[in-house]
Amino acid sequence: MTSIPQPEALRPVSWAGTAVRLLDQNRLPHEEVYVLLADWRDVASAIRDMTVRGAPAIGVAAAYGLALAAKDAPDASFDSDFEAACREMDSARPTAVNLSWGVRRMRAAAKGLSPAEARVRLLDEACAIEREDIEINRAMGHHGATLLRDGDTVLTHCNAGALATAGFGTALGVLRAARELGKTIRLFADETRPRLQGLRLTAWEMMRDGFDVTVIPDGASGSLMKRGLVSAVLVGADRIAANGDAANKIGTYNLAVVAQRHGVPFYAVAPVSTIDASLSDGDAIPIEERSPTEITWISGQSIGPDDVKVWNPAFDVTPAELITAIVTERGVHRPPYLFT
Amino acid sequence: MTSIPQPEALRPVSWAGTAVRLLDQNRLPHEEVYVLLADWRDVASAIRDMTVRGAPAIGVAAAYGLALAAKDAPDASFDSDFEAACREMDSARPTAVNLSWGVRRMRAAAKGLSPAEARVRLLDEACAIEREDIEINRAMGHHGATLLRDGDTVLTHCNAGALATAGFGTALGVLRAARELGKTIRLFADETRPRLQGLRLTAWEMMRDGFDVTVIPDGASGSLMKRGLVSAVLVGADRIAANGDAANKIGTYNLAVVAQRHGVPFYAVAPVSTIDASLSDGDAIPIEERSPTEITWISGQSIGPDDVKVWNPAFDVTPAELITAIVTERGVHRPPYLFT
Repeated sequence: MTSIPQPEALRPVSWAGTAVRLLDQNRLPHEEVYVLLADWRDVASAIRDMTVRGAPAIGVAAAYGLALAAKDAPDASFDSDFEAACREMDSARPTAVNLSWGVRRMRAAAKGLSPAEARVRLLDEACAIEREDIEINRAMGHHGATLLRDGDTVLTHCNAGALATAGFGTALGVLRAARELGKTIRLFADETRPRLQGLRLTAWEMMRDGFDVTVIPDGASGSLMKRGLVSAVLVGADRIAANGDAANKIGTYNLAVVAQRHGVPFYAVAPVSTIDASLSDGDAIPIEERSPTEITWISGQSIGPDDVKVWNPAFDVTPAELITAIVTERGVHRPPYLFT
Repeated sequence: MTSIPQPEALRPVSWAGTAVRLLDQNRLPHEEVYVLLADWRDVASAIRDMTVRGAPAIGVAAAYGLALAAKDAPDASFDSDFEAACREMDSARPTAVNLSWGVRRMRAAAKGLSPAEARVRLLDEACAIEREDIEINRAMGHHGATLLRDGDTVLTHCNAGALATAGFGTALGVLRAARELGKTIRLFADETRPRLQGLRLTAWEMMRDGFDVTVIPDGASGSLMKRGLVSAVLVGADRIAANGDAANKIGTYNLAVVAQRHGVPFYAVAPVSTIDASLSDGDAIPIEERSPTEITWISGQSIGPDDVKVWNPAFDVTPAELITAIVTERGVHRPPYLFT
């Protein structure tokens, strides 16, 4: 095993003493710019406008946002101000359940404490969520790496990498872990319309780490599999129901259907915090619909007819029957999935 | 049946006395600009750079280009000059067989004639090819319209419309014919990465004709079907093998796989000139690979990391088993397809 010089690990969400530090993912891949946000409302906005995105990463960002909200809430109205911030943060995006999970965990951490105690405790809790996320990703990565052989080619969709988490990544963390085990894995990335996270984020982060990455248009995944060039599909998830139905970036469902036709194993890699056992199946997962301009404008330029109607769902649901295994920090889960 | 005021019918390729008139499809949807090309080499370039695109349309454009080549070829070297032009035109794009078909037909028309006779005859032949294409499209449209019921919703991919032909369109011609029969059909259009023909061309041409069109990202087709919103998929084709395997714009194969899962009928609509009976199946259809910049640049702006690797096949092959019916000017063909 040769030693590969590595750049500093990506940390898209971290604490900078008095503010949250976010890598502005809307400016990638051309600029690696970090923003410091000292007001919790700016953190909620950054989640909404996708400065920070990826289910685990927005969970961490929300936690730091709530630590900021607690810092600024006066003693007299602490409980109601903090609760209002929890609610607004929780509603910043609807599909990823890690956001609600992070908010719930912060709410529980503050419970019964005085404002002064809560402020300290909430910052500790947010730091813990960030630290644990990286540990969880490393654990998932090593469980997932057992599914890959040296020389395999992985196809992924959207960005389930270091950029989608506090670091290391979920689906892409599996490739990092496989490399730590001496396996060489080649990556294909769906460009992932409309926001092109595969092209802008996955390709950028994996090239930065020295992986062999090739981007394809989303519609080319079937052709790639037909040529026998895909050993496995690895994706993240934004919410997983009790039966294993998994919401993820729009286009994931099509990819799973095509993988099944070609007998290519389809793995979802996500922390336990992504599981929403309150939902028996994926039909009840709320699907965010975003602005038509994500389709009709790019880099500030109109690319479609004026006033064209657009349907732009940000996520879809892949039924459990199409998912070969779900990898969490607890291990590799096989169907039937019975999450509790 | 109410009378709907119609704009003038689109004529993307036509003859303008001394030159070919092409609608510059790279400037749509923002500008409807026509270019006049008096040199056959410019016509070959316009096919290569997709100023004119769509299998039937490039067949017509090539025919006019060869009429121009004949006009300019001196008597002394007429045969060799004309043959050289035929070869270059034929190789301008590799996948659509209508291009070869058009060139072959022009070559046959000139056979045994003097240069003076050939020049007249070739222009007549090109005009006939254009006129026949519209007639063929109307025939296909009316055959195809029998497959749709009033109130149906059609999903299409790329542009198989008036813009892809001399006029009226293949897959989209079916919607026009259905409207002539009093049926109201709603259209969904895959945006069709990388070149966004669905967003830029299909939406533009069908909105221009008063149809209800909604654009979706290519990856959302499965979600749309899952919601029960698609009655049928209608696409064009660039080459159809003897067994019915059909090459069409990249992404068509994924769409066919997803349609099969949902029991949504999948129809390919293309003239007989698209059938290449010399190929027993689709494996032998040459698939054009185009520049990575079609993925990584848009409207003159870089949207991906510098030097990212890209795989950009322009077409894929949908196996006959996924095609519910193939509609040609001869009628509705059902499997097994045995084209001769």
